Amino acid sequence: MPDAVLQGERLAISRLLTEVENDTPAGQAALNQLFVHTGKAHLVGITGAPGTGKSSLVNQIALHYRKAEPPLKVAIVAVDPSSPFTGGAVLGDRVRMRELSGDSGVFIRSMATRGSLGGLAVATAGMAQVLDAAGFDVILIETVGAGQSEVEIVKLAHTVLVVDVPGLGDDVQAIKAGILEIADILVLNKADRPGVEAAERALLGMLKLGHPTKHLVQHHGKLEEVLAPADTAADDWLIPIRRTVATDSSGLPELLEMLGKHKAHLQQSGDWQRRERSRLHTQLQGLVQHTLMSQWRNQISDEEYSQALDKLVARELSPRQALQALLG
Amino acid sequence: MPDAVLQGERLAISRLLTEVENDTPAGQAALNQLFVHTGKAHLVGITGAPGTGKSSLVNQIALHYRKAEPPLKVAIVAVDPSSPFTGGAVLGDRVRMRELSGDSGVFIRSMATRGSLGGLAVATAGMAQVLDAAGFDVILIETVGAGQSEVEIVKLAHTVLVVDVPGLGDDVQAIKAGILEIADILVLNKADRPGVEAAERALLGMLKLGHPTKHLVQHHGKLEEVLAPADTAADDWLIPIRRTVATDSSGLPELLEMLGKHKAHLQQSGDWQRRERSRLHTQLQGLVQHTLMSQWRNQISDEEYSQALDKLVARELSPRQALQALLG
Repeated sequence: MPDAVLQGERLAISRLLTEVENDTPAGQAALNQLFVHTGKAHLVGITGAPGTGKSSLVNQIALHYRKAEPPLKVAIVAVDPSSPFTGGAVLGDRVRMRELSGDSGVFIRSMATRGSLGGLAVATAGMAQVLDAAGFDVILIETVGAGQSEVEIVKLAHTVLVVDVPGLGDDVQAIKAGILEIADILVLNKADRPGVEAAERALLGMLKLGHPTKHLVQHHGKLEEVLAPADTAADDWLIPIRRTVATDSSGLPELLEMLGKHKAHLQQSGDWQRRERSRLHTQLQGLVQHTLMSQWRNQISDEEYSQALDKLVARELSPRQALQALLG
Repeated sequence: MPDAVLQGERLAISRLLTEVENDTPAGQAALNQLFVHTGKAHLVGITGAPGTGKSSLVNQIALHYRKAEPPLKVAIVAVDPSSPFTGGAVLGDRVRMRELSGDSGVFIRSMATRGSLGGLAVATAGMAQVLDAAGFDVILIETVGAGQSEVEIVKLAHTVLVVDVPGLGDDVQAIKAGILEIADILVLNKADRPGVEAAERALLGMLKLGHPTKHLVQHHGKLEEVLAPADTAADDWLIPIRRTVATDSSGLPELLEMLGKHKAHLQQSGDWQRRERSRLHTQLQGLVQHTLMSQWRNQISDEEYSQALDKLVARELSPRQALQALLG
């Protein structure tokens, strides 16, 4: 299987992705063999509050990479919630992506968010490695949502796009705050909507709040005010804000240019190696957590666990006492 | 400390919550002693997509419980993202809650989402137990966001409110889908906005998709169409949809009535015990995960870990091989 994957055979890739998603021994063995062939792809994480049009934007990014000179091979890993309710939403995504699916330079894979968090991040990392080894130049990792689980997933990327839109409610500010911290590039999508100036101003304000002296803020449009702190190192990355309208492709060439600039910045500054280290740390932590929990589950019989729960419900043991009993 | 907490002394409660949040030995010991006094409070989890006005709704629920006859003692645990960017958002919440803070029958505590996920769910569960033992009748656990971490947190509740609003984008459907699954009551907040009928219809459609035969769907307003499957057991809970406008309190009395009905339903059907079991299972899993990771971190020296990471970055070891080296 690994050889066929290295040669980019779609069926072999697809099968291995399934093995990796299900964390099978065959998948684990193949990942061990393939890992030495990874490290070439540019991993781009895309996240943001709900309602920001991330899927359409990801499709457009992929299409524009395909139209670039030379065209790049692009893989998309879309991490979707899976539930009895999602039939429609997931299907909708697949239909929207159909325009890309006839292209052999594009590979699209959706993944369910079922199962443990550790498991999901582990699976996403493994799938990205398969696609990296298979020769895809850019791997777009898209997460639906903006919770901490999504943050863990985009931490597996070299470059993180955080997507926002004009006109989301105030509550969203708090959500955005949590993910702004990990952004390398901010995208203001649906930029043809009213309120785009105000949204950009708000983002700028949050960036300044977060990095009052560390980062210059580059931005687009009329807001020419920037911070110019004296201690900004010359090789610091300036978090840019890019406006896009995914439905008519406007702003996409500029966004791709910025993605290329960020990759070049990482490579020139030595941050690429630091990012790799941090990415692999995230993956290793997820793997450790997942493995420790699996080992523990295999050690405890269902009966033992059930009895501990009974005692908890009866308040005969506290949760920590039950823990001590179960961990022996 | 436990005695003062049992007597409801605010300073003692506040200090113990800090110990529990920081997972100190004193906090753990106090929780062991207090656990036998828990199990009385009605734990209500509130979640939903961003922008739905959850905080205002939670404040209104608390105010209405205080005005009830007899007034109930209410605690709020608000789980907020913590980052250098959130100063404003968290402060905003605190200001909004000021109207409640002079009332000795109300206790409000915010918690950061920093640190490990396991740690956060563990801390939330522990804090709810402190407040339960301290005599609060209702504990409202509010989470910002709609990711899997938030789902883990609301699973600690007896009753889960999922909040939605008219007019959120299509992307939000997928998010909603993931959390609809855990809803006991659906709240359509900001119901004075245009599009409320369409939003209610969409929710109804998703409920039908998820539970085509298992649940009747009760709803409010003009949509009188309901499923009436023959195999619906008499004691099945019918997921209601309630419209609210948190800013002017409309729909709040009806929502409180529904919360009371759900509690009564749980108690009469025996589901209260099943819920307790499932709640405590969630808490125990989180505790196990947190503890296993801590134990492992204490076993591995920083140097050992750093060397494994070096080998990963150099592609000398695969992640799974590094894992095996680190787990011995």
